[in-house]
Order: sequence, then C-alpha cells, then structure tokens
Amino acid sequence: MTETMKRWVLARRPNGFPVDADFRLEEVPMPEPAEGEILVAVSHLSLDPYMRGRMDDVASYTAPQELDRTMGGGAAGLVIASRSDKFKEGDLAFGMFGWATHGALPASECRKLDPALSPSTSLGVLGMPGFTAWAGLEAYARMKEGETLAVAAATGPVGSMVGQLAQRKGLRAVGIAGGPEKCGLLTDRFGFDAAVDHRAHGSAKEMRAALAEVCPDGIDIYFENVGGPVLGGALPLMNLHGRIIICGMIAWYSGESDETGAIPLQKLWRLALVKRLTVQGLLQTDHVARFRDFAAEVTPLVKEGKIAYLEDVSEGFETMPAAFFSMLKGGNTGKQVVKV
Amino acid sequence: MTETMKRWVLARRPNGFPVDADFRLEEVPMPEPAEGEILVAVSHLSLDPYMRGRMDDVASYTAPQELDRTMGGGAAGLVIASRSDKFKEGDLAFGMFGWATHGALPASECRKLDPALSPSTSLGVLGMPGFTAWAGLEAYARMKEGETLAVAAATGPVGSMVGQLAQRKGLRAVGIAGGPEKCGLLTDRFGFDAAVDHRAHGSAKEMRAALAEVCPDGIDIYFENVGGPVLGGALPLMNLHGRIIICGMIAWYSGESDETGAIPLQKLWRLALVKRLTVQGLLQTDHVARFRDFAAEVTPLVKEGKIAYLEDVSEGFETMPAAFFSMLKGGNTGKQVVKV
Repeated sequence: MTETMKRWVLARRPNGFPVDADFRLEEVPMPEPAEGEILVAVSHLSLDPYMRGRMDDVASYTAPQELDRTMGGGAAGLVIASRSDKFKEGDLAFGMFGWATHGALPASECRKLDPALSPSTSLGVLGMPGFTAWAGLEAYARMKEGETLAVAAATGPVGSMVGQLAQRKGLRAVGIAGGPEKCGLLTDRFGFDAAVDHRAHGSAKEMRAALAEVCPDGIDIYFENVGGPVLGGALPLMNLHGRIIICGMIAWYSGESDETGAIPLQKLWRLALVKRLTVQGLLQTDHVARFRDFAAEVTPLVKEGKIAYLEDVSEGFETMPAAFFSMLKGGNTGKQVVKV
Repeated sequence: MTETMKRWVLARRPNGFPVDADFRLEEVPMPEPAEGEILVAVSHLSLDPYMRGRMDDVASYTAPQELDRTMGGGAAGLVIASRSDKFKEGDLAFGMFGWATHGALPASECRKLDPALSPSTSLGVLGMPGFTAWAGLEAYARMKEGETLAVAAATGPVGSMVGQLAQRKGLRAVGIAGGPEKCGLLTDRFGFDAAVDHRAHGSAKEMRAALAEVCPDGIDIYFENVGGPVLGGALPLMNLHGRIIICGMIAWYSGESDETGAIPLQKLWRLALVKRLTVQGLLQTDHVARFRDFAAEVTPLVKEGKIAYLEDVSEGFETMPAAFFSMLKGGNTGKQVVKV
C-alpha cells in the first residue's frame, strides 16, 4: 500500500466558466479506515453537472463545496482494507469518495457492487444519474401510453435513461443532443423515436420549429436537463396538462443568460394556468428510499442489454478538471467517467 | 310573462382595463324553452375575474367571448317554464345563462338549488369559486397539519374558502387582502391566523417582509389568485417541497406589468429546482367529476355556519358593468353578485 494518495481540491471559486487554476492537485497521507469503515482504491470517478453548482458560494440543495478540501463526488473501486462485516478486501464498492485516488468511508455509506458489471456503471446507468431519471419519471411524470416525452442532453446518463424508460411505457421519446453524431446515437443506439440537433437550431424559435416537426401531437412531458433555447423551443409546444420536470439546467450553470432565461415570469404563469401545466423540481436525494426498487428493476435490464448506455472514459486521475470542463461544454457523449 | 328580456353584450374588445363603451345593454325577445329545456327568470348573476380574460381575442382555456353576443357567465333564478322532468315551475336553478335577465337551457346543464339557501350561494361559496378552492386543494395541495398556506384575494369566494378548508385540515392560514377593513374580516369573520394588507405593502420587497413576519416557518402552499407584488413577496418564502397552485392572476389580467411579472424565467427555474417546488395550473373544469363530493362535504358546513362567506350584492341588472369594473379593482369584499 502506498503511504500517500492524490486528490483534487477546489483552490478558488470559478468566475463563470471554470478554469484549470480553480483546482489544485495534492498529494496527501493515505487515510486509515476507522472501526466500521472501508478503505477503497478508486478505479472510476464520476463527473456530473451538479458539481458546477456546488462550486459557487450560494445556497442550493447542497452546501457549497469548501475551498481547499477534496472536491466532492461519487467514485467506485476496490476495497483494500475493511473494518466492517459488510465488505471484505477485494469487494467492489461505490461511495462519495470525491476527486481522490483513495478514500475511507463508513461501510454503511457505501454500496457493494456486482462484480459482473464494470464499477463505472455504479456512476451512471445504475447510479445517481440513472436513478434520477427513474425517480423523476416514477414520482412526477404520470406517463400514459401514446404520449410524447422530450428530453435534452439525451445521450447523457440521465437523458438516455429517461427516453428508454418512457419508451418501455409506450411513450414516444424525442431526444435533443448536440451534433449529428449524438443524434445518430439517439435513434440508432438508444432507439429514440426522433432526434433534434440543438447545434443546428441555436435560437428558441428554431428549436420550436424543429421540435414541432418531430412532435406533431405536441409535448406531454418535458424532462428539463438544460434550460436555454431548448426549453424556449419546448415551452410553447407543451400540451394541456403537460408536465415539466426540472432536473437540471446546464446551459445556465455558469451564469449564462439568453432570451429564454429572460422570459418574463408573467408569461410562464399564464401558460401554466391556460395549459394547467405541472412544473416540478426534481432532486434524486428526495427519493433515495426507492433506490432499491430502481436497482431491482433496472439492473437486469442493463445486464440483458434492454437498456443501453454510453460512457466516456477519460484516462488518468490528472485529467479530472479537463474532463469536467469538456462535460460542461457537452464534449462528452455518455456518462463522463475518469479512470484512475 | 313579459315578451322581452334584457341582456348585456360585448360591444368591442377592451383595450386594457374595460370601460362602459365595451358593453351594450339590449332588449331582445324572450326565448322559448325547447323540449328538455327550462326557462329561468334570473334573480342573481355572477361576476368573476375569469370573465376579463375571455374578453380578449386570445387562445385561453375557454374560447373568447364573442362580440355582440350575450356576455357569458353563471346565474341563478326561478324556473318559470319547464319542458323537462328534472325541474318544475317554481324550482330554483343555476345555469350558464350569461349576463341576462332570462334564459333557456337544457335541464341537463342546470343544477337544482336547495330552497333553504339563497340562490346567490350557487354563484359563490357553493358554486364555481367555492368548488375551485376545494378542487385545487384536494387535487394539488398535499396539505399536512401544521403547514402554512398563504392566499391572496382572501375575502373573495375562492380565497376565503381556501383558507377555511386549510384550517380545517390543521394548517396555518395567512390571508392577503386590500385594506384594513378586509384584513379585519379575514381574522375576525373567516378566522384566518393572520392577515396582510397588500395596499400597505406595494412592492414585492415590502410584501416579502410583511409575509415573513406572519409566516415565521415560511410558506408551504401559495394559492395564487393575483400575481403581482404579492407573488413577488411570497416566492422567496416558499419552503422546500412547496406547492404553488395557480388559480388566477387578477393583477395581470388587463395587461399590467410590474417587477414580479418581469422576473426572469431562469430565476424561477433555479428556485423550483433548489426548493423542489411544484407549480400547478388549476382550472375547476378539469375536476367537475368531483363537484358532487364538494357539495356533499361543504353544503352542510355552510348551513351550520362552519364555513363563513361574504357576498357583495349590487342591485339592478343595469349595474353589471360597473360592478364588474369594481370587482377587477378589488372594490368588492366577498363574492360579487348582481341582483336583478
């Protein structure tokens, strides 16, 4: 066992879009697992859009990331020491180890992983993003056969799960993604009914026209991952009794503004009343009690290949910040993972 | 039986706030009831905020009011001729007779009224407004004992019912109304836990401070009747998992704008996500299948005096437009009714 480990800390709060100098790589002493804890050698680290929000010093659904501390995040790897009955050395575990090569956590806060699957699946399709999609649909979507669902960032781990689960319930799934390659994946690999390239339709007006073409019966469920012009295009297409589930708004995380973001509240209020829309904020932590139900339902589907997923693996712990920036710009296709 | 009747028609579409010249009083032939219909001599006419919305030529949840036709609306009165088994002469009936002294409608579209109650109650506390309040809370409020509900236009027929029903479920009810007299009624007559005078707090910032004082635990349910600065004050006080039920926005019906109406969508989206709010548009027609449940529950409470209500009665059919303008400006205290 090495006596030190590596970690990334937040060196300062980003001013708008984050840059290299906002992070610092450190070598620190290896932690000792306390009674009831396990020590894990991380093999796969998760990068998620929510991490950007936590870098600002503002009240949100989680406390802000502290400066000079290990960047928070999920990770998976090999148990190399265990002081808990729940795990033994050689097991695979998921936990909130953060941006670090090693970590010690109470076994009760970690999840034992199925060795038949790559540990990386615990970060995406069978982890927080997949569960977010499942929980949001279960709790708020009121899906009915024949309805139309639209979702952006649709090759990503949340969006691709949303579309596939909706289709399994008999809905028409329309995916929005950036560029022809991702759009091809949406229809070919994930089986979406239609795909719209948001890079080819930069304004809300253009998005509206493009979406209208592939949503001839309007949109019943809009699963919000992005904000921006995609939302601007989807809003006027919402059907009577439509549901908007707000899961994220990556287009606005670094303080960006655009014509959709500036739409006056009065206009939305009128639309919500006239169409009797439901607008619902979603955070997966509200639904954790149902994680077991999700795992029981979706794990077999993943193993049998009935739910497809994509991972973008960036090689090397040193690549964490760069892979994070790339993800914020939509440079990833599927779940963004870093392999140590 | 007279051979003519009177009616008000919409002479032209209002430009902003409506004026006298937008309406025209006409004398027209008395209708003959067809087979299955009843003829009613109207005694009480309803005036409701939604009528303003219908005067514009824009898509809304109902078709726009047609020009030169009888203004639409609910009314109640005496059956003076019946060609239906459901009603006999001398019965009391409610129906959508519009702004007219008489009307013929299919009996199946009319409701027989309890002679122990004034027909005016069918327009307010036991009619569409009371049902709106009941249905909105039943379907969307997820009320829990000890929570705080805030509602504006709170002496009105929707707001006063909302507050009283919430209190019956063990919630704290905070009412917002214009002027000290209405606020006194809220606490004294309707039993609200607290009242806030929106005329004494004209900006969203002032409303926020005034609401914060009487909502020390924040707001769990905001029942939206008004929009404007009241909404602007309530939004930042919404608790985690708060519910906003959008029933109306009288402050904005005639095209008014203000700082709250101009709040950028991006800010609301972020608030909805961080607080996991539910924002829900409400229209009572979606819930009509439950009108019987409402009547069965609330009629006894009204008869026993356990649900209080107020009516503002304007005397004379000729006063319809003036009473309507007054209501739009908040000149009424309770349900605005016109007595023929």
